[in-house]
Amino acid sequence: MLKLFAAKHTVSLASALILEELGTEYELCLVDIAAHAQREKPYLGVNPKGRVPALVTSDGVLTETGAILEYIAPNFMPKDAFSCAKIREFMHYLSSTMHVNHAHKMRGKRWADLKESRADMTAKVPQTMAENCAYVESLILGPYIFGSDITIADAHLFTLSQWLEGDGIDISSYPKLAAFELAFAARPSVAAVRAKGLL
Amino acid sequence: MLKLFAAKHTVSLASALILEELGTEYELCLVDIAAHAQREKPYLGVNPKGRVPALVTSDGVLTETGAILEYIAPNFMPKDAFSCAKIREFMHYLSSTMHVNHAHKMRGKRWADLKESRADMTAKVPQTMAENCAYVESLILGPYIFGSDITIADAHLFTLSQWLEGDGIDISSYPKLAAFELAFAARPSVAAVRAKGLL
Repeated sequence: MLKLFAAKHTVSLASALILEELGTEYELCLVDIAAHAQREKPYLGVNPKGRVPALVTSDGVLTETGAILEYIAPNFMPKDAFSCAKIREFMHYLSSTMHVNHAHKMRGKRWADLKESRADMTAKVPQTMAENCAYVESLILGPYIFGSDITIADAHLFTLSQWLEGDGIDISSYPKLAAFELAFAARPSVAAVRAKGLL
Repeated sequence: MLKLFAAKHTVSLASALILEELGTEYELCLVDIAAHAQREKPYLGVNPKGRVPALVTSDGVLTETGAILEYIAPNFMPKDAFSCAKIREFMHYLSSTMHVNHAHKMRGKRWADLKESRADMTAKVPQTMAENCAYVESLILGPYIFGSDITIADAHLFTLSQWLEGDGIDISSYPKLAAFELAFAARPSVAAVRAKGLL
């Protein structure tokens, strides 16, 4: 059985959502990131990068949300190559641009040592996240990103949308994004992960 | 015919390398990033994100290296799902962790406004890149990342390896990474992109 290492308020939510969407049996292992358990043994034996999510499969451990989502949900991918590529493009944007911008609020010490630098980074987060929201808004077809059917990218975006209020963003400024968030929040997968303490 | 928008010293090199590896006919359009052409019209009409690479296909425009590489080289992907996932995992790590760390040297103003913060970020780059190199070193099977056959992830890693000297890294401290770099550098695809002014 698949085992998912995950933690509240992290991108690992996306992997749990897709497992729930599929009805896949899996064991959820909550990692206590408030106590930095992700950067200590025994978790470092699962993922030496010290991050969540990590998915333990019969073939080995898999990390990185974009890789996990496609692995657990191959049948969620469209048949044609270009549509698949657009889903991957969206998720690469989320992980390497939008998620990174968000991380500068609380995880600034990854990139700078001085307190003053980290305060400067934190102050800029509402601006960078607003730029990202405007770009995402321009892409959403509605109600989901690519139209009426959900894709793995929707679980990824829903996860990041949970961080917006804390990042100083008023989601109602982005009507398509706000409607997307409401539509996804009503899905049974969201209730299921909430019941398991991940949201 | 595919059209690739690319620029020297950027991650767009990876897409050109895979196109050369495949012998795919494509038009290379060099974007003058020294003159900030990537953030101005007409390029913003191609990619509103103002970044390279962008691949113009008969189906539309595609961005993000991880998405482009898999789109242009589906036959480079292994047959089994887990091996595919490990390639995607590696490329997500490169784009959302290692590339992002590198970007804090020259692109700090994406995340902070003060000169002092940006100097602080720049000073930390040799440390973060060294951590990334140590992790990559632990993964390389040799000569290529996953063994004797190249994958799309190798073109991505080779591209980032070109930045290491400028980031204060002595690649010889990482023998497998150094051997990988030498092996890839000897491939005809590297000579081909050099002849076209991209390296």
